[in-house]
Amino acid sequence: MLVVTALGGNALLERGEPLTAETQRANVRHAAEALAGIVRAGHDLVITHGNGPQVGLLALQGAAYKPDEAYPLDVLGAETEGMIGYMIEQELENILDHDRPVATLLTQVVVDGHDPAFARPTKFVGPVYDRDEAETRAQAAGWSIAPDGDKWRRVVPSPRPVEIPDLRVLQLLLDQGVIVICTGGGGIPVVRRADGGLVGIEAVIDKDAASALLARQLGADALLMLTDVDGVYRGFGTDGAERLERLTAAEARALELPEGSMAPKVRAACEFAESGGLAGIGRLQDAVAILEGRGGTQIRPDT
Amino acid sequence: MLVVTALGGNALLERGEPLTAETQRANVRHAAEALAGIVRAGHDLVITHGNGPQVGLLALQGAAYKPDEAYPLDVLGAETEGMIGYMIEQELENILDHDRPVATLLTQVVVDGHDPAFARPTKFVGPVYDRDEAETRAQAAGWSIAPDGDKWRRVVPSPRPVEIPDLRVLQLLLDQGVIVICTGGGGIPVVRRADGGLVGIEAVIDKDAASALLARQLGADALLMLTDVDGVYRGFGTDGAERLERLTAAEARALELPEGSMAPKVRAACEFAESGGLAGIGRLQDAVAILEGRGGTQIRPDT
Repeated sequence: MLVVTALGGNALLERGEPLTAETQRANVRHAAEALAGIVRAGHDLVITHGNGPQVGLLALQGAAYKPDEAYPLDVLGAETEGMIGYMIEQELENILDHDRPVATLLTQVVVDGHDPAFARPTKFVGPVYDRDEAETRAQAAGWSIAPDGDKWRRVVPSPRPVEIPDLRVLQLLLDQGVIVICTGGGGIPVVRRADGGLVGIEAVIDKDAASALLARQLGADALLMLTDVDGVYRGFGTDGAERLERLTAAEARALELPEGSMAPKVRAACEFAESGGLAGIGRLQDAVAILEGRGGTQIRPDT
Repeated sequence: MLVVTALGGNALLERGEPLTAETQRANVRHAAEALAGIVRAGHDLVITHGNGPQVGLLALQGAAYKPDEAYPLDVLGAETEGMIGYMIEQELENILDHDRPVATLLTQVVVDGHDPAFARPTKFVGPVYDRDEAETRAQAAGWSIAPDGDKWRRVVPSPRPVEIPDLRVLQLLLDQGVIVICTGGGGIPVVRRADGGLVGIEAVIDKDAASALLARQLGADALLMLTDVDGVYRGFGTDGAERLERLTAAEARALELPEGSMAPKVRAACEFAESGGLAGIGRLQDAVAILEGRGGTQIRPDT
């Protein structure tokens, strides 16, 4: 099977951990062990990953040095594809004893410049501020800001991914048995100009939505979305919470889920299942078990 | 012909220019036009690039935010491969009207952990300081420092590149007609552990040396090192300065050259010419002319 595996930000960095190189590497090593299990089970593998905390950190570092020369989100996204891709590639190659080639491919992802998300930025990036400080920074840097609990944060547009131009290169590598790390952070956000050229844009693409698009366009057999929760729950956080082991896409669409982290995963899983593939959601260490129906939540095509 | 083209730091950023995203992009666009000329002349193309100013900037940004959580040079190098690779890929694809696939591949380059360079760091990274400040920072961060003119700077080891593990993936892409951007900044510096695994190390690999190794191992026909000087000169900076149009490797080895920027290029060119290829040194905009012997300096195998 060709398996596309999306590593959530929480799979690469536990909540509250400092974002040092050492911490990230330790978590990536842990993730690489789970990924190696998928390869050893005989599958071809494409790996995508989140970059929320990392892109926030790079923005903070830039602002701490020269705030008026801050880099736009497409460039910061490309930096995180380099940094995170490198760590995953190296750890996975080491665990696989360099038996299988692993390649990290920078990936641009095209969004529609007229996507309504550009008029309504909703995706939080970077740290929380008191309202006054957030407003001062917003004015200086041209940010949009929004309340997050009783604090304020920068928000950026999160438009839908519509095209992955690097798909043909990716397919070439997969045809030759290469394990590919790509579409990091949902991909480097770009729009198409009138002349067909690509240009970067200030946005953050949802990693799960981009991974579902990638999996569909590659004709993958399975899409795994790995996080720190062991599946989709009915009544999550209540006494009667119940992990759902198998759902059809229609059943999954009917669930009421918190918008924070699980809802976008389930939406992406449904999109992929509706195109005929097997989608799975669960913990990193359960990756193979989810594929085999022994853990997590499987979302399958409606029959 | 298969042409490996190494873009010097000075080809991507004019001396003294600010390192903003806009400035870099404008310079990359200019470089991409020259690279497109090589493709239009009918050649296959691999692009490498320097990262000196960029890796220095990322180190400064990190230090400005949280100095005690500064990232090591392998991770920073991976970030610059993402950032610079993205800009080159996008600009080149746009100029080529998306007719030819262009891919950016993260590249680790192995050095010998016993390389004498580790005992004698010589490569300047980051900004200049007064001696007192340099010593304070060196003590806090475990840097080596050295005088640069009447100021002081951090110095890091610059070991010789010995192996490029990603070569087989790179070859797969070239076999399919893909233009590949790789080995940015001389590659992400790694050493082999006793068990064969790879691990990052605090070093900076000379881009020209890594590009020559890459060109040899790929069996490339030509290696072009592009900079802001129009060739190799006898008596550079004197009244009788004379550009040398053609040299054998032996003639080039006999030249006395300033160690700063031209000497490593000529050494790398000689290594490649001695393995049977055509090496060229000159300005970005003369890339095709250098290949055709109408500009820059050609260094050819000894006959």
